[in-house]
Amino acid sequence: MADIDLMKSLTQPGTTKAILLVLDGLGGLPREVGGPTELEAAFTPNMDKLAREGSVGLINTVDMGITPGSGPGHFGLFGYDPLKHLIGRGVLEAVGIGLTLTEQDVAARGNFCTVDENGLITDRRAGRISTQECARMVSLIDDITLPGVEVIVKPVQDYRFALILRGPRLCSALNETDPQKVGLKPLKLRPLDGSPEARNTADLANEWVARVSERIKDQRPANMVTLRGWSSEPGLSKFEDVFKMKAVALAVYPMYKGLASLVGMTKVDGLRNLDDQLEALRRNWEAYDFFFFHYKYTDSRGEDGDFDAKVKEIEKVDAIIPNFLELNPDVLVITGDHSTPAVLRSHSWHPVPLILWAPGMTRANPDVTGFGETQCLKGALGQFNASYLMKLITAHAQRQAKYGA
Amino acid sequence: MADIDLMKSLTQPGTTKAILLVLDGLGGLPREVGGPTELEAAFTPNMDKLAREGSVGLINTVDMGITPGSGPGHFGLFGYDPLKHLIGRGVLEAVGIGLTLTEQDVAARGNFCTVDENGLITDRRAGRISTQECARMVSLIDDITLPGVEVIVKPVQDYRFALILRGPRLCSALNETDPQKVGLKPLKLRPLDGSPEARNTADLANEWVARVSERIKDQRPANMVTLRGWSSEPGLSKFEDVFKMKAVALAVYPMYKGLASLVGMTKVDGLRNLDDQLEALRRNWEAYDFFFFHYKYTDSRGEDGDFDAKVKEIEKVDAIIPNFLELNPDVLVITGDHSTPAVLRSHSWHPVPLILWAPGMTRANPDVTGFGETQCLKGALGQFNASYLMKLITAHAQRQAKYGA
Repeated sequence: MADIDLMKSLTQPGTTKAILLVLDGLGGLPREVGGPTELEAAFTPNMDKLAREGSVGLINTVDMGITPGSGPGHFGLFGYDPLKHLIGRGVLEAVGIGLTLTEQDVAARGNFCTVDENGLITDRRAGRISTQECARMVSLIDDITLPGVEVIVKPVQDYRFALILRGPRLCSALNETDPQKVGLKPLKLRPLDGSPEARNTADLANEWVARVSERIKDQRPANMVTLRGWSSEPGLSKFEDVFKMKAVALAVYPMYKGLASLVGMTKVDGLRNLDDQLEALRRNWEAYDFFFFHYKYTDSRGEDGDFDAKVKEIEKVDAIIPNFLELNPDVLVITGDHSTPAVLRSHSWHPVPLILWAPGMTRANPDVTGFGETQCLKGALGQFNASYLMKLITAHAQRQAKYGA
Repeated sequence: MADIDLMKSLTQPGTTKAILLVLDGLGGLPREVGGPTELEAAFTPNMDKLAREGSVGLINTVDMGITPGSGPGHFGLFGYDPLKHLIGRGVLEAVGIGLTLTEQDVAARGNFCTVDENGLITDRRAGRISTQECARMVSLIDDITLPGVEVIVKPVQDYRFALILRGPRLCSALNETDPQKVGLKPLKLRPLDGSPEARNTADLANEWVARVSERIKDQRPANMVTLRGWSSEPGLSKFEDVFKMKAVALAVYPMYKGLASLVGMTKVDGLRNLDDQLEALRRNWEAYDFFFFHYKYTDSRGEDGDFDAKVKEIEKVDAIIPNFLELNPDVLVITGDHSTPAVLRSHSWHPVPLILWAPGMTRANPDVTGFGETQCLKGALGQFNASYLMKLITAHAQRQAKYGA
């Protein structure tokens, strides 16, 4: 039985409440052999206490030895096996800028590029134009219409934009049009399966590209587009149906709200910082059972390669832990969607430290005195894959029936 | 390759002997933060010595974060993945009262219920009638015959009974007849697949229900029945074929003998207590290779919520460990089918402590001084799923060939 179906069959409604606090890119590495990681270097008295009182371990949000992107990392935490449910780049770009997709949509990621007088690509990214320039280019093409479908075009970042076709008889089985090197023409769109829907979508998209080209052919530096990452709303079982917990996402960045919305969590808009997020947590405490609380800047400072700044971001989150505890959650999980060691300046495959705090329900890990990668090695939870996290959360929240009699 | 087929291909006959001692519901939780679990509180000098001499670890008998029922928990220990082999409720009730099923049987669990003059259910459990009352009700209906099949009806407990239809052309793909709320009529049986066997079984079962209704319609408080959990003998590969060990079940309770018999172990009947079980162990030592020795009361006291009484039950079992050692087993495993923490008064998802003792064959776990959940965290076996247990047992019993050359 698939994990999701197993959970659907075992979970049951209840009155308990769980918080999943995600410090994006939490896991790290030491700067020098024998030194502390970012989390180990941080002064985190609140998380240390929770680590002693609860159970700790190390989580692989996709799988051991795999470096998670933000989408798969969060899908793993939400209980949806990211190796089975890969979200297309087009959908990710769309939800990343706060668009809500419908079942009728197909989404693509677009790149502005530059072509010469013969239509051959001279720069696949149009000199990496700025986001502002991208917005101006989009404003030149966002009123192009197509027969029978709605067309949505939005700037994303730098030379990238999102394209959504909304309507009946669409299918995302299309090729990408970037030939991957300069000196070639952008490819025509063609259906990748034999369905009339894919044929129809390819025809519509080719028409759209032709009209875009007509509109911007005399612009500089971008005068053409390529399209890739064709994908549809993944149609995942809703979090509430699977886990019987009404869930709300408290995040500042659109990407994380978007990922949560793909599994059916409610989004709260307009949150600008931790204070806003905490206020929204309190305001929604009665109405929801599961609270996804996302903090971005641990990852950002890791990507910057700034070890000390990442330490400070971890300390900022530690300082607000008492605000969570005041609400008396039944389960509080603190972890990340992946590791982002400052020394690597990027996401990494290292398993992420995790605290599972659930009073009266967790096994002791007596050799653990605080929260950190090395201490988590000695934790009661061991090292495990993310598919177990929602099992553990629903179990500790007393919302799971036994399997078989 | 499926686990079972892998084992079949690797195991080989031998002269070694293994004992699997199952303390039902062994795993526990502390009563207060930092306190001992039931096993840690118990005085267990014999098991502590085995923990030091052998290897220890923590076992998930179904999977991490899943709370095992008794059936799945034991199937896991016996080497049959309980997520692939779920036993239906009807079969479980039947084997639970000591019935032996054949391949021709379909089994259902029945409930006595109460209906009004219009046939609408007024009490789905007939006031939870006593087992004695249930036996009397069964005696009113157990001679009803059906064309072409044998009908077996036996009381189970309270308002529950077991129904078995035995004969050709039967299939368990039937709905349950309990409408799940009062004020509605019991549902008619209907085939859940298109097979003529399911159609035939539905017709027979509907006829049986009609005749039962006719017989008991003027009885009080129960005057009707509902049926659920339709299932067939699961047809599992026999333990001896898979692991090349002739196995015998030494259990007091019918349920555990029944579960063992579903994988083809020999049942010994008439055992009333540990002394009987030990005597049967000695008597059968030469004739068998694998001894499943089951102790129920650790689970019972956990379900009662009686921490101290569960501690005493664990100590009772510790006291008989020398009786096992006198027989010079090659492998002795001590574990549980699931955890039953007294503080939760129910089965739980927590992994179960386990000793694997096999002189000369196990790796040391030098930080381990005794047997307990926390010490098992430091064990040589780590935390693992039950599918590995029979691999470890056959390996340590020197009955497993290497995989590939």
